[in-house]
Amino acid sequence: MTAAPRRLESYVCGSWTPGSGAGQTLQDAATGAPVARIDSTGIDFAAVLDHGRRLAGPRLRAMSFHDRAGMLKALGLKLMEQKEAFYAESLHTGATRADGWIDIEGGIGTLLTFASKARRELPNTRVLTDGEVEVLAKDGSFAAQHILSPLQGVAVHINAFNFPIWGMLEKIAPTLLAGVPCVVKPASQTAYLTELCVRRIIETGLLPEGALQLICGSVGDMLDHVTGQDAVTFTGSAATGRKLKSHPAVVAHSVRFTMEADSLNATILGPDAAPGTPEFDLFVKEITREMTAKAGQKCTAIRRVIAPRAHVQALVAALGDRLGKTALGLPGDEGTRMGPLASHDQRNEVRARIRDLQADAEIVAGNPDDIRLTSGDAERGAFLNPVLLYCDRPFAAQAVHDVEAFGPVSTVMPYDDLDEAITLAQMGKGSLVSSVFTDDPGVAERVVLGAAPFHGRVLIGNRASAKSSTGHGSPLAALVHGGPGRAGGGEEMGGMRGVKHYMQRTAVQGSPRLLSAVTGRWIDGAPVSQDIHPFRKSLAELQIGDQLVSATRQVTQADVEHFAQFTGDTFYAHMDTEAARANPFFTDRVAHGYLIASFAAGLFVDPDPGPVLANYGVDNLRFLTPVYFGDTLQVRLTCKEINPRASADHGEVRWDSQVTNQRGEVVAQYDVLTMVAKVWPPSDQTPV
Amino acid sequence: MTAAPRRLESYVCGSWTPGSGAGQTLQDAATGAPVARIDSTGIDFAAVLDHGRRLAGPRLRAMSFHDRAGMLKALGLKLMEQKEAFYAESLHTGATRADGWIDIEGGIGTLLTFASKARRELPNTRVLTDGEVEVLAKDGSFAAQHILSPLQGVAVHINAFNFPIWGMLEKIAPTLLAGVPCVVKPASQTAYLTELCVRRIIETGLLPEGALQLICGSVGDMLDHVTGQDAVTFTGSAATGRKLKSHPAVVAHSVRFTMEADSLNATILGPDAAPGTPEFDLFVKEITREMTAKAGQKCTAIRRVIAPRAHVQALVAALGDRLGKTALGLPGDEGTRMGPLASHDQRNEVRARIRDLQADAEIVAGNPDDIRLTSGDAERGAFLNPVLLYCDRPFAAQAVHDVEAFGPVSTVMPYDDLDEAITLAQMGKGSLVSSVFTDDPGVAERVVLGAAPFHGRVLIGNRASAKSSTGHGSPLAALVHGGPGRAGGGEEMGGMRGVKHYMQRTAVQGSPRLLSAVTGRWIDGAPVSQDIHPFRKSLAELQIGDQLVSATRQVTQADVEHFAQFTGDTFYAHMDTEAARANPFFTDRVAHGYLIASFAAGLFVDPDPGPVLANYGVDNLRFLTPVYFGDTLQVRLTCKEINPRASADHGEVRWDSQVTNQRGEVVAQYDVLTMVAKVWPPSDQTPV
Repeated sequence: MTAAPRRLESYVCGSWTPGSGAGQTLQDAATGAPVARIDSTGIDFAAVLDHGRRLAGPRLRAMSFHDRAGMLKALGLKLMEQKEAFYAESLHTGATRADGWIDIEGGIGTLLTFASKARRELPNTRVLTDGEVEVLAKDGSFAAQHILSPLQGVAVHINAFNFPIWGMLEKIAPTLLAGVPCVVKPASQTAYLTELCVRRIIETGLLPEGALQLICGSVGDMLDHVTGQDAVTFTGSAATGRKLKSHPAVVAHSVRFTMEADSLNATILGPDAAPGTPEFDLFVKEITREMTAKAGQKCTAIRRVIAPRAHVQALVAALGDRLGKTALGLPGDEGTRMGPLASHDQRNEVRARIRDLQADAEIVAGNPDDIRLTSGDAERGAFLNPVLLYCDRPFAAQAVHDVEAFGPVSTVMPYDDLDEAITLAQMGKGSLVSSVFTDDPGVAERVVLGAAPFHGRVLIGNRASAKSSTGHGSPLAALVHGGPGRAGGGEEMGGMRGVKHYMQRTAVQGSPRLLSAVTGRWIDGAPVSQDIHPFRKSLAELQIGDQLVSATRQVTQADVEHFAQFTGDTFYAHMDTEAARANPFFTDRVAHGYLIASFAAGLFVDPDPGPVLANYGVDNLRFLTPVYFGDTLQVRLTCKEINPRASADHGEVRWDSQVTNQRGEVVAQYDVLTMVAKVWPPSDQTPV
Repeated sequence: MTAAPRRLESYVCGSWTPGSGAGQTLQDAATGAPVARIDSTGIDFAAVLDHGRRLAGPRLRAMSFHDRAGMLKALGLKLMEQKEAFYAESLHTGATRADGWIDIEGGIGTLLTFASKARRELPNTRVLTDGEVEVLAKDGSFAAQHILSPLQGVAVHINAFNFPIWGMLEKIAPTLLAGVPCVVKPASQTAYLTELCVRRIIETGLLPEGALQLICGSVGDMLDHVTGQDAVTFTGSAATGRKLKSHPAVVAHSVRFTMEADSLNATILGPDAAPGTPEFDLFVKEITREMTAKAGQKCTAIRRVIAPRAHVQALVAALGDRLGKTALGLPGDEGTRMGPLASHDQRNEVRARIRDLQADAEIVAGNPDDIRLTSGDAERGAFLNPVLLYCDRPFAAQAVHDVEAFGPVSTVMPYDDLDEAITLAQMGKGSLVSSVFTDDPGVAERVVLGAAPFHGRVLIGNRASAKSSTGHGSPLAALVHGGPGRAGGGEEMGGMRGVKHYMQRTAVQGSPRLLSAVTGRWIDGAPVSQDIHPFRKSLAELQIGDQLVSATRQVTQADVEHFAQFTGDTFYAHMDTEAARANPFFTDRVAHGYLIASFAAGLFVDPDPGPVLANYGVDNLRFLTPVYFGDTLQVRLTCKEINPRASADHGEVRWDSQVTNQRGEVVAQYDVLTMVAKVWPPSDQTPV
């Protein structure tokens, strides 16, 4: 440990660059030993943005969503192979193995989840359609379709110290999926771990150059150079966040700004969850976990504990007991349950905030000035045992709803009825997450709906999900992370919603022909081609607009009665004249909807072996006009969307299917979903 | 006209209140005569916000989406009855009848469109679900659903002078639909028309008290009092917008802020659209219309005309000719094609901006200092004839891409190839709308995809949509209005997207039972009830979770062959063993998907007359496991969602339908959509 600490480098404009200034020394959270020096002096920040925009932007945008998802999947797998190196470095941050798991495997897992969700939930295209076609003219000659296309700038991600890996990966995954390059600026205190991770990422060679740049140190004047095509995200303190959000260039160019700041997250014990119930025990366990994981340095950690007045005493006793047993020590020691805070500065900060809280609340467990360790040195490391406070009159209190002590600190407060509990949760003025522990559906409904407008996430804990719940404090790739008001008003992740944060929504209007050309999706009224049966065409030959207009078929009473007996579906509207006529939707007995769809398939299918491999589903089927005995059906089947899979010999084809009667009225409208071979006959097989 | 002008009043805290100050006199745009005085001195702005939050918020939130839609429909119809009074008042703003139509009937039409779209596209609930259920545990014991619930604050709408009625209605329609009260602050210059409209709205008594308040005059310190549950929208100049967006309370509480500001909207003539083509003529007509409608005082008006260099001369000649014939005069005169600007201040402003533009461009038609009128007085009224400029070197120019002259002013600029045209459009740094006039699908695709990231809307004009196109300058209720960058980064309207702007998205996690209780939607794993057949229950009796587990049925080779012959669907995978086995998805001949769905209906239907009136559709049908000969099917049908219609004796019921085989594998999963009677037997009929 006597060697000079390593000098962190920024990865900008294609190379690793140390700052030219003296910089700042970063210390190990548990031992105080120097870990690294950090500095970004001399970097041309305008050039960094430009490098991403000019070099990586076009390359990323030339890839499809599935290409980008494949890239992220490969990257995630490579990083997972190297996780032990990250765990080793992570010890310097004060993180135990369990803490490191959240950051390292949680972060890589988030990347992989985004990759797999993108393959499943996004088409294999470069531009997304958003919502349905809006028909704007009665004769169908003018319509609109919203599309989403990638921003042509870069996303600048300014991250907090507590999750050096997850904090980066949860942001760059959706950004890169959208096709937008990233510049990551980790908080200095733990930037060595982010730097290590970025080194491993760059070494894989999987990302186009410029898709990921890293600033170790200050971002200097970078924000002066952002434009309306860039985005800035910030995770950290509200004070810094406000400053960045009001930055003149950010405001002048309406730069998308996503903030995730302070959050006085609350958890509520339901009136039903008395001591002795599984929910009470889960509540105690969850609070303890949230206070001690990452030494409470999580933006989602529970800061306010709202419990029925009758159970407060038991709760404080149970929490005090558990918290008192939390082994605080060196993060690498096996017996350690909780490591130190990230730095001495952080400890000073948390102690100051505890003093603020004491204006409203008394300490009922722990002592911020008396450190009890199982290993390590209380002077060298930034250790702090858990501190529980109690505020007896929370409606008269201010600090407990406003002051975030970013460490192992929570305040218990009582409520007398459930409306009070909801109001107390709302008094956080907007939080990332709240939770309620109850087994009563009525309590769950009232608390969740009451808390929802003030929260980005609300978790319900009960016995049924005790084992499977991911817990109050865990943001998930599939769910929105972010809260209104004090929490910053940002939305991150949320599955594919997060990808769309880096895309521009545009309403495109025009004639169906030109609109189809833009979206690559056939729209009613766009040109069609009726040469050979479209089921004879492989993906190599098929085009949107390829169409079959079928023969016709009359539906007879005998057909309907036969179908009813065959399937067993003898519903009165098909079988009973009097009852059918009494029905408000029908004037007589009608054909089954499933009969219409079955006859339609009989009319449009080409039976011989060919490139169409399977009908895997039907979307948005609507029966629009009743079919009476003697009506004649005809189907118009049109190729609407073609979606070749990147890693298979086939792809999805969506067909617009419209069934009309002899008067030209549409009786059924739906999308038929098929799998179609890329080439036919398959090149490596004897034709079948 | 010698009487003292009327004193505008604000409608706040339940009463009409004049300001206590001397105020400002507003003049008729065409005659200079005083129209009204405006002032808001003495209003307690914190109380205004509180009035909306406390009185109207709970009442609006207690209504369902369909209730609110019904309220807006009734309101729109009442306002339409009184449109002539609005037209009369509108003359003072300088608007011709055609200009007034955009504002008055366009505004009321927007309100009505929102009302009808909400009934069609939103469920009849108070909270929306957003996206699919996310299963978070392999055993199904933990899941999540995003919901949207109304903000509990108010929306403050700060509007521009150019559309006193539309500007208000397009914003309050989605806000009220969301369940959020509004405070409207119109620009002073034309506030008399907004005030008249609000008087008529309040008189209807259709809105809960506090749902709409009006500030005539300054909003004073109102923004000091906004919270994270409020929203602020601003339409107007970028300078004011930036100030409001950076307001300390807006930033501190992450108040949702939607800005719609300056926009250098461009239109592009395709290389194919040479003089003599219909597209060239449409281009000339559209530019003329956009320059002269509302005397060019539209945020969506065409400011930049981008044309192939070869056609620029012909274009300037054609535009000069048409613009020269624009009859400028008193807005009430029948022969008038264009009225005055809104005020002398506006005319001074536009003249100054024309001088700015002259740094890069020369005037090629019109003279801002030589007013030619067909009626009216050039000194008294704020008249200005259309002015066309030409900029020969647009890549070397700055002002033409940055300076918005908010009047009948546009600049023509040439391009040499299509990439240049796209780059020029992007040089507006973010606009509300661009358009391209072309009949070439390749040109449409390149221009639209190139322009899209910089625009909220892109219109394609061609011969096919010439008659039905709503035009470059018309925002539509169904489409997003707003653009990135310079245009403010806001999104308004966009159909039901606009409603969601005033709602908070929250991820709710929990066990299926508790999650179902919150969302009112049955989720797999939530409790079920299997008493009587659920098709025997009316909406009065039916509950989510009511379930039928059907008898079983074996699918035989004879069934499949019979179905194939009966329907005509003799697809090889059902009929040809060798071909089926060669198929990558099947190991043998399989049953038809439609046969599975038909047999499933036969298994779950209750045939006798009853409350289930019709099967009107199927959603998200997926065939998940092949069904081979001899497999045995069983259906589990569960009531998932109940949606009673406000104005009918029935409602929609969505059923979760899951078909399994003898091994318990899911072979098909889909939603069955039915209409179900509210009571059974119908109270006013003999039972059938």
